[in-house]
Amino acid sequence: MSNIFFNNHGPFKVTDILKSLDLYTEEIYVNEIVNDIKDLTNSNTNDITFFHSKKYKDLANKTKASFCITTENLKKILPDTCKPIIVKNVLLATSTVTTKFYPNSINDNFDNTTNFIDKTIFKNKVKFGKNVLIGNNVSIGSNCMIGHNTIIERNVSIGNNCSIGSNSIIRNTLIKNNVKILDNCVIGKHGFGFFPDIKANIRYPHIGMVFIEDNCEIGCGSTIDRGSMSNTIIGKNTYLDNQIHIAHNVKIGENCIIAGQVGIAGSSILGNNIKIGGQAGISGHLKIGNNVDIAGGSGVIRDIPDNSKVMGYPAKNIRDFLKENK
Amino acid sequence: MSNIFFNNHGPFKVTDILKSLDLYTEEIYVNEIVNDIKDLTNSNTNDITFFHSKKYKDLANKTKASFCITTENLKKILPDTCKPIIVKNVLLATSTVTTKFYPNSINDNFDNTTNFIDKTIFKNKVKFGKNVLIGNNVSIGSNCMIGHNTIIERNVSIGNNCSIGSNSIIRNTLIKNNVKILDNCVIGKHGFGFFPDIKANIRYPHIGMVFIEDNCEIGCGSTIDRGSMSNTIIGKNTYLDNQIHIAHNVKIGENCIIAGQVGIAGSSILGNNIKIGGQAGISGHLKIGNNVDIAGGSGVIRDIPDNSKVMGYPAKNIRDFLKENK
Amino acid sequence: MSNIFFNNHGPFKVTDILKSLDLYTEEIYVNEIVNDIKDLTNSNTNDITFFHSKKYKDLANKTKASFCITTENLKKILPDTCKPIIVKNVLLATSTVTTKFYPNSINDNFDNTTNFIDKTIFKNKVKFGKNVLIGNNVSIGSNCMIGHNTIIERNVSIGNNCSIGSNSIIRNTLIKNNVKILDNCVIGKHGFGFFPDIKANIRYPHIGMVFIEDNCEIGCGSTIDRGSMSNTIIGKNTYLDNQIHIAHNVKIGENCIIAGQVGIAGSSILGNNIKIGGQAGISGHLKIGNNVDIAGGSGVIRDIPDNSKVMGYPAKNIRDFLKENK
Repeated sequence: MSNIFFNNHGPFKVTDILKSLDLYTEEIYVNEIVNDIKDLTNSNTNDITFFHSKKYKDLANKTKASFCITTENLKKILPDTCKPIIVKNVLLATSTVTTKFYPNSINDNFDNTTNFIDKTIFKNKVKFGKNVLIGNNVSIGSNCMIGHNTIIERNVSIGNNCSIGSNSIIRNTLIKNNVKILDNCVIGKHGFGFFPDIKANIRYPHIGMVFIEDNCEIGCGSTIDRGSMSNTIIGKNTYLDNQIHIAHNVKIGENCIIAGQVGIAGSSILGNNIKIGGQAGISGHLKIGNNVDIAGGSGVIRDIPDNSKVMGYPAKNIRDFLKENK
Repeated sequence: MSNIFFNNHGPFKVTDILKSLDLYTEEIYVNEIVNDIKDLTNSNTNDITFFHSKKYKDLANKTKASFCITTENLKKILPDTCKPIIVKNVLLATSTVTTKFYPNSINDNFDNTTNFIDKTIFKNKVKFGKNVLIGNNVSIGSNCMIGHNTIIERNVSIGNNCSIGSNSIIRNTLIKNNVKILDNCVIGKHGFGFFPDIKANIRYPHIGMVFIEDNCEIGCGSTIDRGSMSNTIIGKNTYLDNQIHIAHNVKIGENCIIAGQVGIAGSSILGNNIKIGGQAGISGHLKIGNNVDIAGGSGVIRDIPDNSKVMGYPAKNIRDFLKENK
Repeated sequence: MSNIFFNNHGPFKVTDILKSLDLYTEEIYVNEIVNDIKDLTNSNTNDITFFHSKKYKDLANKTKASFCITTENLKKILPDTCKPIIVKNVLLATSTVTTKFYPNSINDNFDNTTNFIDKTIFKNKVKFGKNVLIGNNVSIGSNCMIGHNTIIERNVSIGNNCSIGSNSIIRNTLIKNNVKILDNCVIGKHGFGFFPDIKANIRYPHIGMVFIEDNCEIGCGSTIDRGSMSNTIIGKNTYLDNQIHIAHNVKIGENCIIAGQVGIAGSSILGNNIKIGGQAGISGHLKIGNNVDIAGGSGVIRDIPDNSKVMGYPAKNIRDFLKENK
């Protein structure tokens, strides 16, 4: 589902891809074609994928991709059906190849395809404020409202009965039904993902989207970044308070309640029925179970199992924390 | 003072109120009328109130309300002059009844009553930027400025010599004199208050307002939510830095200095002459005394007496904290 | 460089300056003239400076200023070439005198010099969105973009190849080349600096600017305040994530990576190649060395030497912190 908003410029010849990486072209690749670039799990035959860390060896071992950007050390883990493309810096090469397939996913300059809503097909369908702008490839369901100065940039799908506030900016986002997004939000911009380079950092592509499910509410001044290779997801009936930051690839389950100024770093996955107090922070790449309570101000730096209540920095069992901190 | 901006749709017959709660109507209620819904303290004869926790038993015992939404367990605490209306979920029933009295206090969709300021009576009175919008029921004193793209939504009263920045959104707010509100603020939206429900959370009404007293300054990107049954108050000459979040029903005293990115959770009450360092957080329903210093980054989870200096998470005496954390 | 955007209303007679401070004029000052007000280091002959704390005695001893606002206790540290002007409250008097030289540096009311960009000389030079405003004294290089509803207030210089997002507000800022500023930012407003006064706090002047060097990126919803007597600086190729707050006079080095919701308090100086995790906070007036890693959620309250990795609140050596907090 990750590419619905980005136009795949492939397929490409493998020889062209190797050329873009300044690599020598071996005979065996001459007639090969690649359709798309995807992660290890979602790749199919004739896709190219990437594998940069042993942490993902179980996924790598089972990938269906026909090609994989990887290192000399890691290549032996790949199945025989997947031909390794050996590079020095896997992520940088992946960025180069992804840019080839999705050239529009690198920068997030303002959307110059927008037009005033009263000059669009939504003129009579949507209840809208002053100065509302709508970009290309936007769909809006029935009974929706969009507040003043709000910019629905390109690649946005909004369901039925949604209320978008004023001064908000949305792009590359799929919003289901009965969703409320309050004022001054920025949703769907690329995440804070790039390869540091002393001359000028190199941004990698963000071909994911933000997916906001039914009945969610997003508070004022919040920012939700879209995914890089997967999506950022806010599950059904989850409520976010004001000034929250959700980084790229984060997945939040259903019926969660997240208080003001919380921040969740990239690629963390949260279960259902989670409560997070104000200003708590969750580090990246963590797994938070179902029915977890995280006290306000906590700093979570490790995975948390189901049904836990945690507090502190680093967050630990709340009873232990309070006993130690009377 | 809590209802100056919301139109009371009452009085209602008690039988109508019982019907809206799916309750059986007892004979004794047939001719009874209710004027308004208020909390235990502010209710008068012929008002309805609610009582859901033993924590408030002293207030319940003295309420002047004629009716009270409560539980079988709690009803005996009410005075004889107050007839109990027994429900399973007091807060949910209270929400239903408040919605009956104040139907416009539930949702915060964008204000479609606004008009460009140069088409209003403020055209020659206020110094204003481009694209400024003004909603219904707005008053503005002399010598005021309103910046570009700012939206003064309905139910706002601004005193004299006030300067409102650009890109800010204000509703349900009473601003006194010499107040400065900088750019990108959202003030007066409903708080993060609702009844969690697995199908779709139910918002409860916010019939309070934000009250900003003389000489205050509110920094860029800050959010201040209005009260639910009472008001959110920023006391005289209190300065807030950038990116601060003040939740609903919070009351801050006079001459306070609150640094950037601080968050104060719902219903906490702060005294005068308080200094709060950057990124500190204060949990909900706390009482912070006068002349208190809270160090930056602290997490306050307990009441703090007058004249204290605290630091840490949980915040404790600053000397103890620094001794333990050399 | 600090005054390029503010018009110096001097020179003034010393007798006028003394009068504005309600001070008795001694004979010796009758024919003296002052050109400018600067800090101890940057002052030249015929400038006035200020000296309020022993902490700065080495700088005071070497100042080239002809006059210095100071106290009876501190005056003996000044060189013979610098005549002391004795006051009770040095900072308050400095504020009064600076206001005399730079009357426009006190308040940050919205900029009423702005005009729609299509009525300016930038019409054919810049790629711009709807409703873009440009103030006085703005310059913009080649190949730049400015998004919808963005306000470039007065005193802004933008280099080549810059991309400014939508709904952002910038003033008193010098932006070099290849800089990206995303949506909903506020850059260049005065800092949170004032003299607390029980009747009404007194703001002191902010005659500095924000200086953003080549290749920087500033994330959505961030605020960067301009300096008071010096500048706020973001070094070359430094990337800021969303919802970051940078206070006045902060100087950040080159190639730094600062994650979401970080806050840096006033006048702290950071080196090069620093990484700061999400929600970390740095107190004011600190010195952070080169190649420092600060873990997310940390609270830094002391200087940090080069090449350190720190974590916790207060931040300490990361290995010690993790050992003590298993």
